Amino acid sequence: MVEGPPRAATQDEIRRHNLARITRHLHSTGAITRSDLVSLTGLNRSTVGTLVSELADAGLVREIAGPTGAIGRPSLMPEPIAESVVVMAFEIRVEQTVGALIGLGGKVFQRTVAAHRRDRYRPAAAVKQIASMAHGLLQAGPGGAIWVGTGVSVAGVINRFSGLVRIAPNLEWRDIPVQELLDRAMAEQFRDPPATTVGNDADLGAIAEVVRGAGRGRQSVLYLTGDVGIGCGIVHAGAGMVDAGGYSGEVGHMVVNPSGLACHCGARGCWETEIGADAILRAAGMPDADVRTVLAAAQDGDRRAVDALRHVAGWLDIGLGNLVNILNPEVIVLGGHLQHLRPYLAHGDGPSSALFAAREQVRLRLPELGEDSTLIGASEIAFDPLLGDPLGTLHRSRSRIAS
Amino acid sequence: MVEGPPRAATQDEIRRHNLARITRHLHSTGAITRSDLVSLTGLNRSTVGTLVSELADAGLVREIAGPTGAIGRPSLMPEPIAESVVVMAFEIRVEQTVGALIGLGGKVFQRTVAAHRRDRYRPAAAVKQIASMAHGLLQAGPGGAIWVGTGVSVAGVINRFSGLVRIAPNLEWRDIPVQELLDRAMAEQFRDPPATTVGNDADLGAIAEVVRGAGRGRQSVLYLTGDVGIGCGIVHAGAGMVDAGGYSGEVGHMVVNPSGLACHCGARGCWETEIGADAILRAAGMPDADVRTVLAAAQDGDRRAVDALRHVAGWLDIGLGNLVNILNPEVIVLGGHLQHLRPYLAHGDGPSSALFAAREQVRLRLPELGEDSTLIGASEIAFDPLLGDPLGTLHRSRSRIAS
Repeated sequence: MVEGPPRAATQDEIRRHNLARITRHLHSTGAITRSDLVSLTGLNRSTVGTLVSELADAGLVREIAGPTGAIGRPSLMPEPIAESVVVMAFEIRVEQTVGALIGLGGKVFQRTVAAHRRDRYRPAAAVKQIASMAHGLLQAGPGGAIWVGTGVSVAGVINRFSGLVRIAPNLEWRDIPVQELLDRAMAEQFRDPPATTVGNDADLGAIAEVVRGAGRGRQSVLYLTGDVGIGCGIVHAGAGMVDAGGYSGEVGHMVVNPSGLACHCGARGCWETEIGADAILRAAGMPDADVRTVLAAAQDGDRRAVDALRHVAGWLDIGLGNLVNILNPEVIVLGGHLQHLRPYLAHGDGPSSALFAAREQVRLRLPELGEDSTLIGASEIAFDPLLGDPLGTLHRSRSRIAS
Repeated sequence: MVEGPPRAATQDEIRRHNLARITRHLHSTGAITRSDLVSLTGLNRSTVGTLVSELADAGLVREIAGPTGAIGRPSLMPEPIAESVVVMAFEIRVEQTVGALIGLGGKVFQRTVAAHRRDRYRPAAAVKQIASMAHGLLQAGPGGAIWVGTGVSVAGVINRFSGLVRIAPNLEWRDIPVQELLDRAMAEQFRDPPATTVGNDADLGAIAEVVRGAGRGRQSVLYLTGDVGIGCGIVHAGAGMVDAGGYSGEVGHMVVNPSGLACHCGARGCWETEIGADAILRAAGMPDADVRTVLAAAQDGDRRAVDALRHVAGWLDIGLGNLVNILNPEVIVLGGHLQHLRPYLAHGDGPSSALFAAREQVRLRLPELGEDSTLIGASEIAFDPLLGDPLGTLHRSRSRIAS
């Protein structure tokens, strides 16, 4: 209801804006009839035709024959050309780093994994390893493709303006300018590489599930990660949260049990201490097992394991209720081990402590993109400049895979 | 990062969009030099000149002489004409309803109050009373002014699409179509009245503080109301939350103390049961007093009153920490009695349980608009159609105050 940041619009900007919208739709849907593009964008048929031709001339899109229409002519279906532009996506996990080369439309050309020792993975080593993985990925890529961006996921608190990693607890990194270090390393390895963007793992998972997964087409989605820590990506009005610094979604440190255990953050009874992986192992009396073992025992009818999962699900329920009351989302995607707790919730259809109006609207969903959702999200932020201004970004891009 | 809803832009739309931006700036800043408008909007000087002239021709804006510039000529300062267009704003409180007639730029022409008995204030009576107050307000308004909207604040859970009041606990209203009832009542009293919009009191307070108060110019603001209940308006990217139904911000029912007292909502240990007015009275052992009495006693050094406020401030701190971790706002405005708890917080500069990165960014502020912030917010939503499309809305408006 209150105006966003001031922004001037010129005729050229409208054209770019519309080219961007068409490209973004094609990127997320794949091949689609012109008629569907007309209804998705609200643009008229001739404008869509002109814009698609421009994108085809630029090599981003081609038109294939679609289903035959009523008057016997096959309709034209624009589709994104995966080999035209590519990005690299990396996900720094606790004990491995995953990389992928991904084309327009989301096609994965190559995926690669490099293991590391958690306690020895210093930022300098990580940056060097990623630059070297980038080298291998590009060599396996489609000849002639233009490299338009690199996205990197880190499990940590990351400034959305600078890509500064304020803290990544599992790696014990603090105030590391990962984005800047990677830009420098890439510039040493490659000529004119595109920019690197660093994002938080939960935020990227949320973006991926909204573009291609369980939150597709929704305006208001929460994506919860469940592991040792609990994170949350918030998609709001179809985009990431516009917050003070990019630190929103630290739901793992929402205090739900002030008389509970101390959390590593310094507070007591954080949601993470009640529903993180350690809480499950503790409740099940299996401190040295992993969560899968507890889940399997419960499925085999082990009473203590069942009770442990019910107990933790009770805390999951309370925190979900808080998020529903505060944010009134359309969809909450339960990621990681949280998806396996859903059967143990008192009500599978929504948190029992939420007020009725918001509770009747929310849908609890399971992730659809598997363990690579974060990596896919990293590719989406790397594509973002292209999807925001396709021809301008192509024009500025200087890095092309050798044919 | 992900595209918002599809929207086509034409040349006429750009012009309207820019007229809207100029009008919105003038509405919130009042008289301002053309140069400042240029830098605020990012439009060039000649475009600003053309648009201001269009608004002046429509009677919404006039240009006055501003400070004399370096070359000795006074600069021109466009200002909104308060007498050109007006809205009516109403706030339904527990024991009274307040109404105001407000002109472009926020000038209050007339304010009126009607008392009611809380237990006898049925929706039909409220609607009748408001329509009658509207009659009096319009008679006192500037002759020739065009009435462009009506905004109404209700303390309750309100669907943002339909204006349906799902529940207003203090009035014991449930599923009352207040917006529809008011539109009908206005149409019986007046010829061609503009539309009525109903909003939640905390959301409206947040909007008012962002447009004219402690959150001015900020993108990410929480406004907390503190009374028997605790509400929260969330402004995000400079606008209200785009949530599933308009129910976000029910922070009063965030569970912070699962072993605490039962809340009227059915849950246990809601934030409202720990920091609402009743919690203060309970902690101070003064169940029949009001909060002001406890505050005064504490200022006089009464040990039990001081301890009570410290105890409640501890719970305030925990809930604020949760909101900072989840939403990473720039500003939190502490409204109602919560502003008087600030001196009793462990750290006056931010919640102690929040993670450092988000905590170092948040500012705790006191409201600047006094007890009428909600009423002002109701006027802002009533002005919204005009501010979104000034000339189009003028063109469609049929209701003018008799000269």
